[in-house]
Formats: sequence, C-alpha cells, structure tokens
Amino acid sequence: MTASPIRVGVLGHTGRMGAETVRAVEGAPDMDLVATVGSGDSLEALVEAKAEVVVDFTRPDAVMGNLEFALSHGMHAVVGTTGFTQERLEQVQGWLAERPDLGVLIAPNFALGAVLAMRFAQQAARFYDSAEVVELHHNRKADAPSGTAAHTARMIASARSEAGVEPGPDATVSEVDGARGADLDGVRVHSVRLPGLVAHEEIMFGAAGETLTIRHDSMDRTSFMPGVLLGVRETRTRPGLTVGLEKVLDL
Amino acid sequence: MTASPIRVGVLGHTGRMGAETVRAVEGAPDMDLVATVGSGDSLEALVEAKAEVVVDFTRPDAVMGNLEFALSHGMHAVVGTTGFTQERLEQVQGWLAERPDLGVLIAPNFALGAVLAMRFAQQAARFYDSAEVVELHHNRKADAPSGTAAHTARMIASARSEAGVEPGPDATVSEVDGARGADLDGVRVHSVRLPGLVAHEEIMFGAAGETLTIRHDSMDRTSFMPGVLLGVRETRTRPGLTVGLEKVLDL
Amino acid sequence: MTASPIRVGVLGHTGRMGAETVRAVEGAPDMDLVATVGSGDSLEALVEAKAEVVVDFTRPDAVMGNLEFALSHGMHAVVGTTGFTQERLEQVQGWLAERPDLGVLIAPNFALGAVLAMRFAQQAARFYDSAEVVELHHNRKADAPSGTAAHTARMIASARSEAGVEPGPDATVSEVDGARGADLDGVRVHSVRLPGLVAHEEIMFGAAGETLTIRHDSMDRTSFMPGVLLGVRETRTRPGLTVGLEKVLDL
Amino acid sequence: MTASPIRVGVLGHTGRMGAETVRAVEGAPDMDLVATVGSGDSLEALVEAKAEVVVDFTRPDAVMGNLEFALSHGMHAVVGTTGFTQERLEQVQGWLAERPDLGVLIAPNFALGAVLAMRFAQQAARFYDSAEVVELHHNRKADAPSGTAAHTARMIASARSEAGVEPGPDATVSEVDGARGADLDGVRVHSVRLPGLVAHEEIMFGAAGETLTIRHDSMDRTSFMPGVLLGVRETRTRPGLTVGLEKVLDL
Repeated sequence: MTASPIRVGVLGHTGRMGAETVRAVEGAPDMDLVATVGSGDSLEALVEAKAEVVVDFTRPDAVMGNLEFALSHGMHAVVGTTGFTQERLEQVQGWLAERPDLGVLIAPNFALGAVLAMRFAQQAARFYDSAEVVELHHNRKADAPSGTAAHTARMIASARSEAGVEPGPDATVSEVDGARGADLDGVRVHSVRLPGLVAHEEIMFGAAGETLTIRHDSMDRTSFMPGVLLGVRETRTRPGLTVGLEKVLDL
Repeated sequence: MTASPIRVGVLGHTGRMGAETVRAVEGAPDMDLVATVGSGDSLEALVEAKAEVVVDFTRPDAVMGNLEFALSHGMHAVVGTTGFTQERLEQVQGWLAERPDLGVLIAPNFALGAVLAMRFAQQAARFYDSAEVVELHHNRKADAPSGTAAHTARMIASARSEAGVEPGPDATVSEVDGARGADLDGVRVHSVRLPGLVAHEEIMFGAAGETLTIRHDSMDRTSFMPGVLLGVRETRTRPGLTVGLEKVLDL
Repeated sequence: MTASPIRVGVLGHTGRMGAETVRAVEGAPDMDLVATVGSGDSLEALVEAKAEVVVDFTRPDAVMGNLEFALSHGMHAVVGTTGFTQERLEQVQGWLAERPDLGVLIAPNFALGAVLAMRFAQQAARFYDSAEVVELHHNRKADAPSGTAAHTARMIASARSEAGVEPGPDATVSEVDGARGADLDGVRVHSVRLPGLVAHEEIMFGAAGETLTIRHDSMDRTSFMPGVLLGVRETRTRPGLTVGLEKVLDL
Repeated sequence: MTASPIRVGVLGHTGRMGAETVRAVEGAPDMDLVATVGSGDSLEALVEAKAEVVVDFTRPDAVMGNLEFALSHGMHAVVGTTGFTQERLEQVQGWLAERPDLGVLIAPNFALGAVLAMRFAQQAARFYDSAEVVELHHNRKADAPSGTAAHTARMIASARSEAGVEPGPDATVSEVDGARGADLDGVRVHSVRLPGLVAHEEIMFGAAGETLTIRHDSMDRTSFMPGVLLGVRETRTRPGLTVGLEKVLDL
C-alpha cells in the first residue's frame, strides 16, 4: 500500500468505545490518528489536524452537532452513537445533499462477525423450513432473548416467508412450560444465561439428514473494532448516507 | 486375553434392539453368540447351547418368565426390557437369593456416553452454582424436554442441594415467554427440535471467567451396544441384582 | 401452489442414491414420480410416462447415453453421476445448443448445507486474516483431510488473496509434529477421526475479540435430497448447462 | 452458615493473580480479607491480623520463606506460586510434621473447570478405544499443543492402557502432512490458533453410534478464583500437604 494513511479524528475518545477506537486506529497501518476530541473540547482541533474521517462514539445530545460540523468542514463520518430517529436521519441526508462528495456511515452494531452471521442466516433461511436460535450470555443480562437474537429470528422468518417456504412441523405435544423457547414469528429462540459466558449466538438450520450452524462468539468490545476500521476505509468511497454495517460489506 | 469367550444367548433377537445385540455380540472378540431365542421359541435352546449370559430385549409380558428360566439354569442376565416395577425387582431378588453366584443387570439406558454425561454432570454440579441443559432432537419427538434432559436437570439440582450450593442469580427482568426455557428444580432446560438432528444433550456449567460443557451425541441404536457388551462382561463378576448401567462403571 | 406437480423420472433407481431420490420425490408435494429406469431397462418408459425432468444417479458409462436421450425427447436433467470431463461437458452443451429451452444441472455435491457452508466461508474470508478448518469423520475414512475441507480451505485462501488480505501471523515456535494441522495454501486444516462421527465440517474465522464459526453436520445420504429436489425445481427455469449446485442457489 | 468468616491473608497482592485473589476474597460471603502483603512488606501483618489461611501468589524466591513463616505461626496455606521441586515439597512436609494440625495446598492450576475436564476425560477413557483432543488458543501462543492438552492426552492414554483397552484403528492411508494432528502416546491432538480465541479445550470420545465431548472454555484469569476459594475452604480441614486441586475435589 503506497497510499498515504487515512487521517482519522476520534470524537468521544474518553468513553469505552472511543478509547477502544483510539487504540485500534493507532494500530492500523493504513491510518493516522490525528485528533481526539472529548466532551467540552473544541471541534476546531479536527480542522487543524486536517482529519479526513471522524469516528463518533459520543452521546445522542452531542452527535448531531458533531456531524453538522464534520460535514460542513469536508470530513466523512463513521457513527456508533445511538439515538438516530427517522427525523435525525433525514437531517443528516439534508446536510449531505449539500456535500454529495462526503459519506456518512451510521451503524448500531459494528461487530463484523455478528453482522455476517445475521446475513448468512438470512441467505440460508429460504433453503430450510426449520431454524432455531440459541443465544448465550453472562447472567447479568436483563433481557431474554437478546436484541440480536430477536432480530435474527425475525430476519429468518421474513426471508422464509418471502421465499414462500412454510415453517416445518413441530411434533411437540407434551411440553414443560418454556422448554421449546420463545416463539418469534415462528422461529424458536432459546436464551442461556451463565456466569463465564460473554455474548454468543448460534443459529441452526435443519433438513433431512443434515444441520447447518452459524455461530458468533464475542469476547469483548475489541470485537467492534474491525468493523469500525472497515467503516473508516469504506465511507470515503461511498458518498451519501449508509445505515448498517452490512451495507458496506458487499455480500 | 487367553480366557475362553463368554457364551451369550440373545432373547428377542428379531426385535430392533435384539437384532443389534446379535450383531454386536458376533463382532465382539471376547464373546460367542451361542443361541438366539425369538417369541414362541423354546428357552431350552439356551441350555443346550450352554449359554453363560443371556441378554433380554423382549417384552414386559415375557421377561419375567425368561429371567426365572435363566436363573434357575445358572445363567447370568443383562436386561434392557422395560416395565420393571418395585414388585418385579423384589421377585428377581427372591430368585437371586437362591443363586447367590449369579448376577442380573437391569438398565433402562445402555448408552454409555449418556450415562457418563449424567454422572459427570452430577459430579460437577456441586462446584458451580449455575448450570443449564440444552437438548436437541429430531422434529418428530413428542415431548419436551427429553426424559434424559429432565433427569439430568434433576440430578444437578439434587447434587447442588446436597452440597449446600445455592442456585446462582438470574438477572432476567424482561423475557419473551419461554426464552429462558423450562425450570426443572431450578435448572433451566432448553429443547431444540430440527429435522437432521438425532439425539443430543449438552450440559453447561458456568463460573466467573469459565464454562464447562459436557455433550453427548447419539446417532443411532448401535450406540447402546458398547453398554450392553460391558454389561455382559461385568454381570458375571457382580452377583446379585444391579439396577442402572452407571453401577457397573465404577466411576 | 395450484401448479400441476412436476413429472419426474429417476434413472438408476436401484442404486443407493437413486433409491433415496425415489423416496424423496414420492414425499415431495409438488412432484410426481412417473417413471423409474434401472440398468437394462428401456428409456422409452420416460417418454411414455411424459417425464418433464429426469434425475440421473447411474454410472459414468451410462450417463451420456441417458442425457442424449432425455434432451432429444424434451426432458430437463439433474445429474449426480460422476465422471464429467471437460470433453463431456462440451458434448452436453452441444446437445443443449439444439434445445435452448432445456436445462441440465450437473453437480458433484447435492448437500445443500455443505454448499452453503462453503459459500459463506468464501464470503467471510476477506474480512478475516485468520481462518482454520476442522473436519470430523468416522474412523473408516481413508483420506485426511476430506475433499470438502481441502476445497474449503483453498476457497478461503483464494478469496483472501483476491481481497488483498495477508494471512494473519502464527506465533507458534515450538510444535509437536502435526499439532498445527495441514497447511493448505496458508489455511490450517485439522482432521478428527472417531467412530460415532459421520461427516462434519467446522470453519472458524477469528479477529480481535470475536470468532465466527460455520458448521455443517451430515448424518446420512438423505441430506443430499433437498439439493436434488431443489435442482429438479430450478432446472426447468434455467435453460442451458449449469455445473454446481451453488449456481442455482442465487446467493 | 453461622460460622464466622475465614480470615484470609493474601501474599503478592499487587501481582495479577494476587490482585484477582483480593477481589475474589472480598466478594466471598464466607471470607474476610484481613491482610495483604506485598514484596518488601513485613509478614508480621499476617500475625497481627490473625490470618487463618494465607494465599501465596508470589515468586519462587519468596514462597519458601513465606510458607515457613505461615506454618510456624499456625496458618494454613494455599499456594499458586510455581517452582516446586521434589526437594521443596519435602521441605514443606518437614515443616508440616511439626504442625500436624495445619494444611498446605500447592496447585499448578486452579481452574476448576480444567481440572474437572481432565478428571472426566480420565474416567471416560477406559470405556472408549478412540479419543482425540482439540485445543484452541489465541494466535499469540508459542507452543502447540498446549501443556494442558498434552497432559490430558497422556492421561487418556495412560487410563486406557491401565484398563487394557487397545487404541482403536485409524483407517487413514492418505494424509496431507499434519492433518491428523500430533500423536501423543496414541492420542491425536489438534491445535487451533486464531485471534479472538482465549483458551479452550475439547476432548472427544467416540464409539459405535455416539460421541461424548468434554469442553472447557476459559475467558480470563477470574476463572482461577473459584478454585482458589475452594482451596481456602478445604485446606483448613485437610491437614498435611496436598498437591493438585483435583485432590480436594473428592471426585
């Protein structure tokens, strides 16, 4: 690679995800960390440092101001901050209309493996009438199933339905309450909670004589960094607004 | 091994388990298949063939007569036929009182791996306050959870209780009905049903920073044969009545 | 579905795969089994039965004659018979040139899950610099690794290379010979052999803090049937020659 | 539990394992952390704090002095520090001869799950003629296979041999170099190395129609703490020298 490194600025660098991003950018051979901006710091540092791409892991009350500043100063943006309503997305598109050369990637989930697992599940769904999801998390988790597992189940149900595949039969006639898991649009989801687990999802498809399993294991938040770095690289060549990491994967 | 082969007679050799036993005994280098007796055949064939051990996979209405005959003719017995009530077990013990040199093994489950998995789960239970069971079967199964999984969960709960270990906390406050599985004496059990699966059980224990998993996969009824052959070998040196394959494993 | 059932003829119905196909077609609600042709039987039965699609699981010395007959009588074909050289494929294309309305699908592997697993592995490969394959088979298998695993490893290496991704580092400096598996184009492959296993493949990708695993478990040859039935359905709407089941999956 | 809490002193509390121990003891309802002693601190603090049990995660050049002090002042000891030669063990036994009421536990591995997994593998070994080990670690690991996996394989081979079980046949005739793993006393061991993995071991046993799998996943060093706490509890009622955590598990 003879191209000059991508000049990256990190907003929210003292938060947990921001700090991780700082480490990841510093470790990426094709990037230079040129500025970090914390809460209360001036955004002008980004301009002085000639940042090309900003990564925003701040807060819902700060992100819109940050984005407006970045776009008006010719910087692409990768955003992991939450709280994007339809109204906010339209506002971002308005800003981008004036700078059609710039790209913004907003993603709720930067875990590459999780995004790939969901995408593969969606692709496999129409070939199997039967699928179940087992998600396994530490025992401090408050909700069951996890948002990712619920989303996966619904994507499978939807892909199956679009392909005109009827859900396979379930012969269960005698069940101890809860044994067969939660029913999400016809896909059963099981939530295991144990200390020692981190965040794991297993999607199983079955047909006569075979099963196909897709599993994602996430150990810690460093797992989001390959997705963030990919976003930094891709957003420069994808003008306009992109929502969801899966859109830049070109699967 | 210079000992002469064990002379084995199979009762119920035309049934599915009996036929499998015939094949297994024929393939065992330390055994000779000397007689097979089907429904309606005379038991005298066992005497003429000088059978040392009989294996019974017949029916509840035939097995007691078979046992009485075998014991009165000096043969040990390995029994997989179901329907043994307390009354029947006492009857067998009565016959054995007159022949203290003979051994009878009656077992509801000859799958060595399943018996070992349950035993290991029982041993591990007192070191972990958290355990869950995931059992996976083909989608023609009528009950959920499987009898084996329910039995395993209850053994874990019981071992934990005996050791004075309180079940670990579960932080779930928001649950889609059924997601957390069935609660059997405080142990969660999840039942997956998919075509392509056969019979599988996974027992997971969790503690800070680690998990321990014991898994048994059963593909077909040949999986019962190592347990049957072990029973044939062991029953000759274990006079009296033994109920349950785990008793002859000396774990 | 109000369309009339697809009229299917099976060639080689007495072989193992042919017999399985007969059962699968009989069980498919959208198909009618209208003819079966064994070695020595006349192919005219297919014409009399008005077969629309023929499935060929015969032998290399019979398949070309069968295909010529089927195509010249206006029938589509799904072929699992082996032995297709480049020369043979060109011959089939020659016949198809005269019947551009007909479709022929020739596939070395009809296991849907195996084909999907390989395709997903190929898709994931460019996002990870590290991947390993573990394949697990019964202990009667003569070659290690399996052909499927070797093919998968080479596909990963190739996809990685095309994307310009360098293989990740391996810190191993002290190795008991063989521990790190076989090196196939930079992808490590491990072959487990145990009685009780059937045919399983696990493809693992790793990045900072996460792993992505794709696993296929094949229990018996019924696992090929969903792929065969899919081929029967698809070949009618895909004129010309198609080689490889993955081509009709539209992934 | 109405008993008063166990009074624990931690030696080497500023090291990684020592710091983890401090946290674990503080979180244990049946223990009180009464003293912490770092390099250069006086051991008298243990006496003043009336410690009943000391936990030593120091260095080989400090541990013997620490042990002599603890035993001469009536304290039990749990030791994770390495470097115990036969000579050192005999020295400890000499000190214990004068204080037969005290207990010392020295263990190279406090991961409860790893110790249980090895023990279960040893128990299962004599019922199966075929076993393989797959160990999976992060890609910064220098040796393959891991010490734990090598030890496990040798324990299996030894248990099998003691039971007179011949290793099962391996039909492999064509092998890409390394595919079948490393051969340790007749047990094949496979080492997977990927970023994202931490430390995992899977032990598989196979017989006709079934497999039994024991798996241990270790995420971080908190996984050693349940074993350390168990040691603290048990050492008070086990006078004399105990080497190896498995000895106090009463399996």
